[in-house]
Amino acid sequence: MTLAQWLDIPLSIIQAPMAGVQGSRLAIAVSQAGALGSLPAAMLSPSLLQQELTALQVLGDKPYNLNFFCHQTPADNPTALADWQARLLPYYQELGISPPPATGAGRMPFNQEMADIVCRYRPAVVSFHFGLPAPHLLQQVKACGSKVLSSATTVAEARWLAANGADGIIAQGLEAGGHRGLFLDMELEQQLGTFALLPQIVAAVKLPVIAAGGIADADGVAAAMRLGAAGVQVGTAYLLCDEANTSAVHRAALASPQAAHTALTTLFTGRPARGIVNRLMRELGPRPAAVPAFPLATAAIAPLRAAAEAQGCDDFSPLWCGQNASGCQPIAAGELTRQLAAGLL
Amino acid sequence: MTLAQWLDIPLSIIQAPMAGVQGSRLAIAVSQAGALGSLPAAMLSPSLLQQELTALQVLGDKPYNLNFFCHQTPADNPTALADWQARLLPYYQELGISPPPATGAGRMPFNQEMADIVCRYRPAVVSFHFGLPAPHLLQQVKACGSKVLSSATTVAEARWLAANGADGIIAQGLEAGGHRGLFLDMELEQQLGTFALLPQIVAAVKLPVIAAGGIADADGVAAAMRLGAAGVQVGTAYLLCDEANTSAVHRAALASPQAAHTALTTLFTGRPARGIVNRLMRELGPRPAAVPAFPLATAAIAPLRAAAEAQGCDDFSPLWCGQNASGCQPIAAGELTRQLAAGLL
Repeated sequence: MTLAQWLDIPLSIIQAPMAGVQGSRLAIAVSQAGALGSLPAAMLSPSLLQQELTALQVLGDKPYNLNFFCHQTPADNPTALADWQARLLPYYQELGISPPPATGAGRMPFNQEMADIVCRYRPAVVSFHFGLPAPHLLQQVKACGSKVLSSATTVAEARWLAANGADGIIAQGLEAGGHRGLFLDMELEQQLGTFALLPQIVAAVKLPVIAAGGIADADGVAAAMRLGAAGVQVGTAYLLCDEANTSAVHRAALASPQAAHTALTTLFTGRPARGIVNRLMRELGPRPAAVPAFPLATAAIAPLRAAAEAQGCDDFSPLWCGQNASGCQPIAAGELTRQLAAGLL
Repeated sequence: MTLAQWLDIPLSIIQAPMAGVQGSRLAIAVSQAGALGSLPAAMLSPSLLQQELTALQVLGDKPYNLNFFCHQTPADNPTALADWQARLLPYYQELGISPPPATGAGRMPFNQEMADIVCRYRPAVVSFHFGLPAPHLLQQVKACGSKVLSSATTVAEARWLAANGADGIIAQGLEAGGHRGLFLDMELEQQLGTFALLPQIVAAVKLPVIAAGGIADADGVAAAMRLGAAGVQVGTAYLLCDEANTSAVHRAALASPQAAHTALTTLFTGRPARGIVNRLMRELGPRPAAVPAFPLATAAIAPLRAAAEAQGCDDFSPLWCGQNASGCQPIAAGELTRQLAAGLL
């Protein structure tokens, strides 16, 4: 069964939820074009989330996907945060700003309040990153009628998700931009490329499998379908679209030769995520041992990023991007969706 | 133009050269089945190479590929070797053997003597790993009528190979088993998965591009062709074939769940190569800083491997394997080739 058949929509394409660079506007454009638009909720407060969900009601009966992170929030660790800010001190000094107060997690995991909001809006699909939420929350979401997707970065994770209540699996190949969804084995050595991951997950589980990572155009869509995918999830290619909120420095990096050089970095949040290599990643290395646990690392970088971006500088910005930015085009998301859909024929 | 058209053979498939686990027997079986068999020459002395080339003459007019490494041999570094052997001392003691003399490079780069042998046998294809040989040797090989392939692991490497005389490019995705072909940027963070690497190389060069990495069955072949490949190179799937010389411990690992866990390791030769995680990789980590430069690291491990394998133990063996071992079958290589070829239709 294809994703289109499963969700009763025209196109077996999901626009990947990309927290921080898009909101309901992009999701609406994609769902209106016949694919599945996604709203990333990981960085939204409950009130902002409801505001965005209200905006999505313009879609009427057309389905959309609501995405949450479901990590465990670590205990506060003031020592680790202080050590990390000490490491960043030269940068604070360079930009003439003070280190921020060592508080603020940055990203909330899915919780009861969010589950209750979900059940008021009943999105066709709820997707999770970093595993699945607590069983009672998962059951609540499913009981409200939403289909549940989650990302697997290994075959073992796909099997775990299938055994623990997911309705479909996103096979997130190593090429994908943004946060790796890994949650069972945190060893990055074990992460697989899409070409190896996708067919092995298709063989391992009986659920619909959505391919993600490196898919940038119609040929990529067709190739993923040939490897057994029920549909594809495309993120990076949408980052230059008119309806994305991608920052000016991020857009400039995506459109430059710099986009050929990405790495998995923990610098911006504490969890490995793929972004374009910039000054901070070069100078500290992409994954220094001193970075606090996800999402506690977020607060220390935020003011550096804000101050630098105000000067048009991407030195401290998370420039999320997959390994194939060749599909990025400054066009309407609906037009990009139609281009990708040519690979479904 | 497909690989089949380019070489005037029936099938656009190359059996990947796999030094240490196969010789002319596998190459002959694959070429006789209509694809391009490969003889890995990197670990052969000139006399053994000629013996294998003589065996290949049974193919008559059918083409085959002769593969060489073209690294720079580093200067001897007795201190580094002694440090490395000291690190391995507990293992020598455990197996009751003496550390070997700290000599012997293990793998010779392509040189004048080999170029002269190539020109006596005139293989249809000569492929190189780790870049290209010196210009006069490359010119000699091409003047003798061989088409020259080399592996690219980044788009920049593909452009470099095209500008420096390669006739075709092997796009070696991160999923591939054995040695990474990287030669320009030695930073593993920059290595791309096949799904991202292949179409970007196809777009960047005007030469035929062969896809390698993660291709294990007919659907994988079809998907790679859809991403613009002129043909595919398949290695791992051939490792259990009757005509391969794969060791008993290696075969057992490939057929076990252990094969799901691979990593890029420098432990066995000094250069990163993908193999199944075994005890040595777990205990020392896959790429400890103390490993001597390629190929000087080879000698220190060899006696450990021999002693352990004699006891049926794979603790010290390089268990080369890509990220998708699902295609491994204990069948004749000709039969595997025909199965893969179904993806070309």
